[in-house]
Amino acid sequence: MIYLDNAATTYPKPASVQNTVQIALKKYGANPGRAGHAMSLAAAEEIYRCRTAAADFFKAPGPECVAFTLNCTHAMNYVLKGLLKPGDHVVTSSLEHNAVMRPLQKLSENGVMFTVAKVFPGDNDATLNAFRNAIRENTKLIVCTHASNVWGIRLPVERIAALGHLYNIPIVVDCAQSAGVLPIDMAESGFDYLCVAGHKGLYGPMGTGMLVTPNGSNLETIIEGGTGTSSSSMEQPQTMPDRMESGTQNMPGIAGLLAGIEFVKSRGIPNIYRHEMSLIKYLYKKLSENKNIKLYTDEPDWPYFVPVLSFNVNDLPSETVSQKLNAAGIAVRAGLHCSPAAHESMGTLKQGTVRVSPSAFTTMNEMNALVAAVHKII
Amino acid sequence: MIYLDNAATTYPKPASVQNTVQIALKKYGANPGRAGHAMSLAAAEEIYRCRTAAADFFKAPGPECVAFTLNCTHAMNYVLKGLLKPGDHVVTSSLEHNAVMRPLQKLSENGVMFTVAKVFPGDNDATLNAFRNAIRENTKLIVCTHASNVWGIRLPVERIAALGHLYNIPIVVDCAQSAGVLPIDMAESGFDYLCVAGHKGLYGPMGTGMLVTPNGSNLETIIEGGTGTSSSSMEQPQTMPDRMESGTQNMPGIAGLLAGIEFVKSRGIPNIYRHEMSLIKYLYKKLSENKNIKLYTDEPDWPYFVPVLSFNVNDLPSETVSQKLNAAGIAVRAGLHCSPAAHESMGTLKQGTVRVSPSAFTTMNEMNALVAAVHKII
Repeated sequence: MIYLDNAATTYPKPASVQNTVQIALKKYGANPGRAGHAMSLAAAEEIYRCRTAAADFFKAPGPECVAFTLNCTHAMNYVLKGLLKPGDHVVTSSLEHNAVMRPLQKLSENGVMFTVAKVFPGDNDATLNAFRNAIRENTKLIVCTHASNVWGIRLPVERIAALGHLYNIPIVVDCAQSAGVLPIDMAESGFDYLCVAGHKGLYGPMGTGMLVTPNGSNLETIIEGGTGTSSSSMEQPQTMPDRMESGTQNMPGIAGLLAGIEFVKSRGIPNIYRHEMSLIKYLYKKLSENKNIKLYTDEPDWPYFVPVLSFNVNDLPSETVSQKLNAAGIAVRAGLHCSPAAHESMGTLKQGTVRVSPSAFTTMNEMNALVAAVHKII
Repeated sequence: MIYLDNAATTYPKPASVQNTVQIALKKYGANPGRAGHAMSLAAAEEIYRCRTAAADFFKAPGPECVAFTLNCTHAMNYVLKGLLKPGDHVVTSSLEHNAVMRPLQKLSENGVMFTVAKVFPGDNDATLNAFRNAIRENTKLIVCTHASNVWGIRLPVERIAALGHLYNIPIVVDCAQSAGVLPIDMAESGFDYLCVAGHKGLYGPMGTGMLVTPNGSNLETIIEGGTGTSSSSMEQPQTMPDRMESGTQNMPGIAGLLAGIEFVKSRGIPNIYRHEMSLIKYLYKKLSENKNIKLYTDEPDWPYFVPVLSFNVNDLPSETVSQKLNAAGIAVRAGLHCSPAAHESMGTLKQGTVRVSPSAFTTMNEMNALVAAVHKII
């Protein structure tokens, strides 16, 4: 099988990730931070190592700023509902995933208002203007994706962050598609909160995500419970990351995530980006030669894109194309990719798109096989 | 190492669980239910198999009634916050974990009231009376643990459920300590909602839990996001289990949980219960022979207990005892076990307790080693 659905979940995982999960099940089999015995402490130390590695990876102030979650969506819910109150206004982009739009929709039932700022691909000044025009007196937060999971379009989040800070408005960046592919430096770029998927560009197992905060203790909680700390109190602890980590964590997953982060560090983000981008640029070029193929963006390149490409074959439903590719042994994703807003902005809400997303392991041969299979469908 | 902290997390996991996690990382490496390609469908089918097995295990109406969560605490938050509204009243027990008490405390800030009904160990009639007396006109829910994670005391939840139903009040049962150890039959026992840990008596990996509902679609959500279904809508889907499963699930964990459930079914719950209970009864007998050891309950036995035993050595801090046991190669848990309410009812809030909890793999030799080590401490 040729696997080109890495924007959903990277596959295969590096051997080190698979091995570490297996070792964790044996060596770190006790509940971390819940007891004083040796295996519980060993498990807690392994989690702390991952926390430290993640904080270092994103240049967060410290390991306590990294809270582990089930996935990026959970991280997004924690931060949006942890910060926003009735009467608050939020600015978001026109390319957001349902992980942002559905929580905002839910919050809007409780008096939170939001405005969608239009993204102008390839014209960051215009995009920035749209964000500027969307800001109101009561804007308390900007939330936007680092890069679209449908179009690969990279948003000028550093400039959006700087804009927000002029008005004292913090920014939440959805790094689902960017972590492990683009450099993310909280300190330098002015990102206040990061929502991160562990199982995509960081090569961790499914069931891992992170919320990275400046310190986090100002967040209201939507989930409370046992944390192994301040146990005599009925109140959720204020201290991070305990405040955001109720109940038993995904110990083997977090151990695997640490191995994934180490894999990305050893390969180097610029190398991963260059490798994947060269594949996507090649694919774009090949597909653009055929007039039966619909492409929706300019040729993807730095700094405007991450390596994700959507296309369609004439007016064929995207699901039909992906089924045919699947029959040819090629795994891509069709449909809306949980991002109707991003499709609305390109007029593909009905047809969806066929999405191709490589990983660090994808080869040029696999791209050629895809091109051949698409031509066969045509 | 002799591992006796199974009430926190069972260890070791059956070989089948460890193997299945490894296989899942290779065979089911794609995002389940998010794409039409073969590996995504295979992953979705594996998750459906676990859902079906869990529904069958608890006699839930159907697989759609089982929603996977990060842990039992998350399940508890989903159901409490999904059902309760300002002005509602809840009845709970005096033996609850912080997974119940902290969400209730948080809800109380928003106008939800709760009353704690005292549990009378060994006197189910008195316990039932306490619940009866706690019910008010505006009581909308009963939430209580199936068995105390500190004392092993089993609550008469079937009778409490029947009582609640007389007043049209549904019941949420915290099955963290009972799933896999006590038979749980939703249909027969009248339990409306189950909150389940995957990594304890069901022998799944950490990072797995379940919320089992009668159908669930009446629950409000606290987390929304991509579900791979109804993607064009900004509203969270009504259909279960999608409504409660936003973002990418813990695929390898859920595969491991399925293997864990199959392990429990093959051993048989009555056999597991009898085995673990015989160990705990033996331990109780041995410890009760020494006047330096404080025990807090009657001799544990059916139907009043699950196999969890708490003790102290004179007035030694429970942490001191557990550290000495750890030095002797025995893993137990000390402190409050995230259940201050349960300690308050026995006057052990300051000292905590040393907790012993066996698994299906624990042997009588290990119990003897524990007894010898405790005597050495004295």
